Amino acid sequence: MKTATTLILALVFSFTQLTAQNSIDRLEPPNWWVGMEYNTIELLVHGNDIASHNVTLKPYENVQLLSTKKGANPNYLFLTLHIGNTAKPGNLQLNFQKNGTSVFVQSYEIKGRENNRRNIEGFNTSDAIYLITPDRFVNGDPSNDAVKRMLEKPNRKDKDGRHGGDVAGIVNHLGDIKDMGFTAVWTNPILENNMPSYSYHGYAITDFYKVDPRYGSNESFKAMCDKASEMGMKVIMDMIANHCGLEHWWMKDLPSDDWINQWDTYTQTNHKKTVVLDPYATKKDTKEFFDGWFVPTMPDLNQRNESMAKYLIQNTLWWIEYSGISGIRMDTYPYPDMYFMRDWTAAVMAEYPDFNIVGEEWVLRPTIVSYWQKGKENANGYTSELKSVMDFPVQHALTTSLNDPNSWNAVYEELGQDYLYPDPNNLVVFPDNHDMSRIYTQLNEDEDLVKLALTYIATVRGIPQVYYGTEILMGNKGTEDHGVIRTDYPGGWEKDKVNAFSGEGLTESQVETKNYLTQLFKWRKDNKAIHNGKLVHFAPVNNIYVFFRYTKDEMVMVLLNKDKDPINIDIQEYKEVLKGKLSGKDILTGKLYNAVDNLQISGKTAMIIEVE
Amino acid sequence: MKTATTLILALVFSFTQLTAQNSIDRLEPPNWWVGMEYNTIELLVHGNDIASHNVTLKPYENVQLLSTKKGANPNYLFLTLHIGNTAKPGNLQLNFQKNGTSVFVQSYEIKGRENNRRNIEGFNTSDAIYLITPDRFVNGDPSNDAVKRMLEKPNRKDKDGRHGGDVAGIVNHLGDIKDMGFTAVWTNPILENNMPSYSYHGYAITDFYKVDPRYGSNESFKAMCDKASEMGMKVIMDMIANHCGLEHWWMKDLPSDDWINQWDTYTQTNHKKTVVLDPYATKKDTKEFFDGWFVPTMPDLNQRNESMAKYLIQNTLWWIEYSGISGIRMDTYPYPDMYFMRDWTAAVMAEYPDFNIVGEEWVLRPTIVSYWQKGKENANGYTSELKSVMDFPVQHALTTSLNDPNSWNAVYEELGQDYLYPDPNNLVVFPDNHDMSRIYTQLNEDEDLVKLALTYIATVRGIPQVYYGTEILMGNKGTEDHGVIRTDYPGGWEKDKVNAFSGEGLTESQVETKNYLTQLFKWRKDNKAIHNGKLVHFAPVNNIYVFFRYTKDEMVMVLLNKDKDPINIDIQEYKEVLKGKLSGKDILTGKLYNAVDNLQISGKTAMIIEVE
Repeated sequence: MKTATTLILALVFSFTQLTAQNSIDRLEPPNWWVGMEYNTIELLVHGNDIASHNVTLKPYENVQLLSTKKGANPNYLFLTLHIGNTAKPGNLQLNFQKNGTSVFVQSYEIKGRENNRRNIEGFNTSDAIYLITPDRFVNGDPSNDAVKRMLEKPNRKDKDGRHGGDVAGIVNHLGDIKDMGFTAVWTNPILENNMPSYSYHGYAITDFYKVDPRYGSNESFKAMCDKASEMGMKVIMDMIANHCGLEHWWMKDLPSDDWINQWDTYTQTNHKKTVVLDPYATKKDTKEFFDGWFVPTMPDLNQRNESMAKYLIQNTLWWIEYSGISGIRMDTYPYPDMYFMRDWTAAVMAEYPDFNIVGEEWVLRPTIVSYWQKGKENANGYTSELKSVMDFPVQHALTTSLNDPNSWNAVYEELGQDYLYPDPNNLVVFPDNHDMSRIYTQLNEDEDLVKLALTYIATVRGIPQVYYGTEILMGNKGTEDHGVIRTDYPGGWEKDKVNAFSGEGLTESQVETKNYLTQLFKWRKDNKAIHNGKLVHFAPVNNIYVFFRYTKDEMVMVLLNKDKDPINIDIQEYKEVLKGKLSGKDILTGKLYNAVDNLQISGKTAMIIEVE
Repeated sequence: MKTATTLILALVFSFTQLTAQNSIDRLEPPNWWVGMEYNTIELLVHGNDIASHNVTLKPYENVQLLSTKKGANPNYLFLTLHIGNTAKPGNLQLNFQKNGTSVFVQSYEIKGRENNRRNIEGFNTSDAIYLITPDRFVNGDPSNDAVKRMLEKPNRKDKDGRHGGDVAGIVNHLGDIKDMGFTAVWTNPILENNMPSYSYHGYAITDFYKVDPRYGSNESFKAMCDKASEMGMKVIMDMIANHCGLEHWWMKDLPSDDWINQWDTYTQTNHKKTVVLDPYATKKDTKEFFDGWFVPTMPDLNQRNESMAKYLIQNTLWWIEYSGISGIRMDTYPYPDMYFMRDWTAAVMAEYPDFNIVGEEWVLRPTIVSYWQKGKENANGYTSELKSVMDFPVQHALTTSLNDPNSWNAVYEELGQDYLYPDPNNLVVFPDNHDMSRIYTQLNEDEDLVKLALTYIATVRGIPQVYYGTEILMGNKGTEDHGVIRTDYPGGWEKDKVNAFSGEGLTESQVETKNYLTQLFKWRKDNKAIHNGKLVHFAPVNNIYVFFRYTKDEMVMVLLNKDKDPINIDIQEYKEVLKGKLSGKDILTGKLYNAVDNLQISGKTAMIIEVE
């Protein structure tokens, strides 16, 4: 096994060029804003022997340079600036001196805030999220496929290579996404991943302040957010606080030994997510869980280092303020230091009270998933600030149920664990995502079961999320290879013979599934009972599962039949909710029911009845 | 489907003969004691037109007849007696009168309590429980195999029939059970099951105050408890508050319609154990869970009927006080009315503060199992009084882990959920029981894995329980049929060619397994670190799982290797607990370790090291 140190020595050097004017090659965050809650910031300054300078701030009303911290490494300085809320936007002048003589002056911009940033509305139960792996969706700008400074060049023939999808591709098709009924786009990480290979997934960030040039630029990403916003859509940014890419610039010159979690020999996280509550866990295993690395190419960041913690918090606030995203999906939420994660989340929510963040905790026990949701009173006293968590238990239970020939029990019982969550409505529900087999494959290519899965996640409590391509039954038959799961979206590349946007070349099943999904999510967009209604579900009987969503004014009855045969439904069975006979409209078929005592549901079919 | 009413009409009448002296054919409980906490009792009196009588108590110092309640059925009277703690033991005289004239006088005995009954010590972590299905263990008295009044006659050729095992058989072999290191015997129910067929399992009680004559008598059962007590052993009685047998005498003449839970059409329990906490559950499903029947031959008792509730509580207290049992295993604990179960449990524990009761909640979610343990603060406000619960989640996780070729994760993570339990040490842990495949079969007849399973349950927190025959690798290959699982113990019947007691005819594997188990449980008997020690476990690495039990003075290190190959253990990995090198003795092999840095553990082997 390689040690972290060995790995660092093995790096390919691809240093950012020093700026000509001074000896600073990194100054982060690149700017700040006036009027933020978080108005005392720490600037990370990197440059050759930069710590040998004294720094002063040229007088600027309501801004103070509070302190200058030297790190273990003379190439770093950490400057603490307080930006009073009454300061005027402008350029600060930081004077770098040696022996009382100015060596150079560094300008630092504090901007005015854009309209209403503080009140950004995060994604919520009224939304439906479309998840995109940017490299694999649409290649909107072939000119950025190969970028000189980037180590990995495009190779569409390599399932693990870069295929050329980009921000421009997403922008071009926001309308198509909206037309399917989605109101939010979550993209896998779009920041620079300048890794020599297997970089397309985006989880090995090498520059936390820069959109990967193969996707576009910071400006084009911001433009995408602006356009989405104009269209009434939300953008959810995928972030990672746990690790960076091994080619991150600071890995060549760490500020201090404790900037990342280092081990004598390479140590992987043990993935033992139970340690947080396990009364018998060892300190060793707890440390390995939090501080072990994901993979040798992703150094594990040490958020207990105060400057690292500030760096990550500021970076997140910077992206929200800069781009106007409506939410964050935080990767591997339980793996960083958990107290840091509380601070990070609290800082974001303090800055943007209506924002939303969903954490990934891929574990099938709701006891552990719920640990991370705000409001949970945990046995160890830990309190989280996270509003939303990915609902992996229900994802697993749903597919288990759909693959069970006789019973819906798995998902019925899983949902019955919702008392563990302080806020089950803020769980993100999904049939699959970029890290697992596509739902079409999980359900053994049974398109009717896919429709049932989509119906379920569109109508149950929570916020639904669908992975790109689900609408056209994209699958990964016979493999669980991520490169195959994240295959190119047909129509995203010039000369594609199939075009899922235009419909050209799609099979009948694909067209039908896309139409079904579109009908479902367009309807969901305006249904208050689904957004905010209470849920009540009846114990499934064999292959029938029935539940209701209702408010004071509206009621929706959802019936799911996964039997191959039609089944008769006796309305009396649901008298506790329906009171008498059933009147209403099946929104999928348009069929009207007028005071009926029973109805028939076709084999492998869902009904969604707006009850009158 | 048959209705309850139809079923009742279909009964074979096998009425208890009326006594000649008076018109009472049932008076229950048959006696009471002076000095009980529970000193206001309700006598159930059944007799033809008995409600037409007035009842008075012949003056008896410190005893009062508080009330006489007539039921809906004139053949019942419920008399409430208060027995003051200073009353003298003796016979009360109940005068049954009509029109002011005495018709008959019924004597009712209040006895003095046996020594120290109040302080019965329940089973606890120092115990190891041997579970016996009495019909299938040893036929100690062939003369009681066929009993005239009993509908089902013996038929050893029928796997579902009665085979003749009895209390005498258990009594004869208490010494053998003790010699294996067990300190407690739990027998499946021994009360009368006068059902026409499939009665041997004991869960369809037809007389709550009478040992099934094919097992022996109340007296012989009490004698067994006395003998066990003399030998330092405990007896755990299997009870059922949820249902009775359809041939129960009262089913021919119910006190009231609400004595049992009746339905318009036969309704089975939906077994939806999640309803207790499910925020979305319907009243319908909740009612069906609690009030639905197990099977058509077992009427579901309505514990919300006050007289039924008192009947069941008194019945339990009567058996404890009468026989001196040390514990109860309560069948189907969550199925009766849950508030009644709290009252029942509280009444038993108030009467016998050191007693113990273990509830069966066969569900794999510790969230649900822990709901039933005393001290749990449940989301719905329900509080339980039950000290001990069967640990089905760990049973399942243990076998899952043992059958996993690469990982111990399942059981490591399951144990990590122990924070959900107010008292994990009071969980009963077991490799199997009478309702599931035998552990030898669950582990695909791998005797080494059986030894690992036994080692685990003997050393982990909790109270171990082993099913009879596990020691000789009894199995049920190719079937999950209960009749096969509960097969006859070899040597329990005259002329058996194999005798597990003497060892005659046992295979080498059987002898070795029995010796292993004996060594394990005899050692466990006196090990304080196992009884009361804390637990700490290390995240398993591949096929090695290591945990420690320790008190201030003692420490035990348990190593489980389920790999087929030997594995080297680096003691440094456990420095958090062991501090330095390891010294101690492997209690299984006797091998001594003197300040070693590492050790080798053979393939598919456990080591239990008493650390010095």
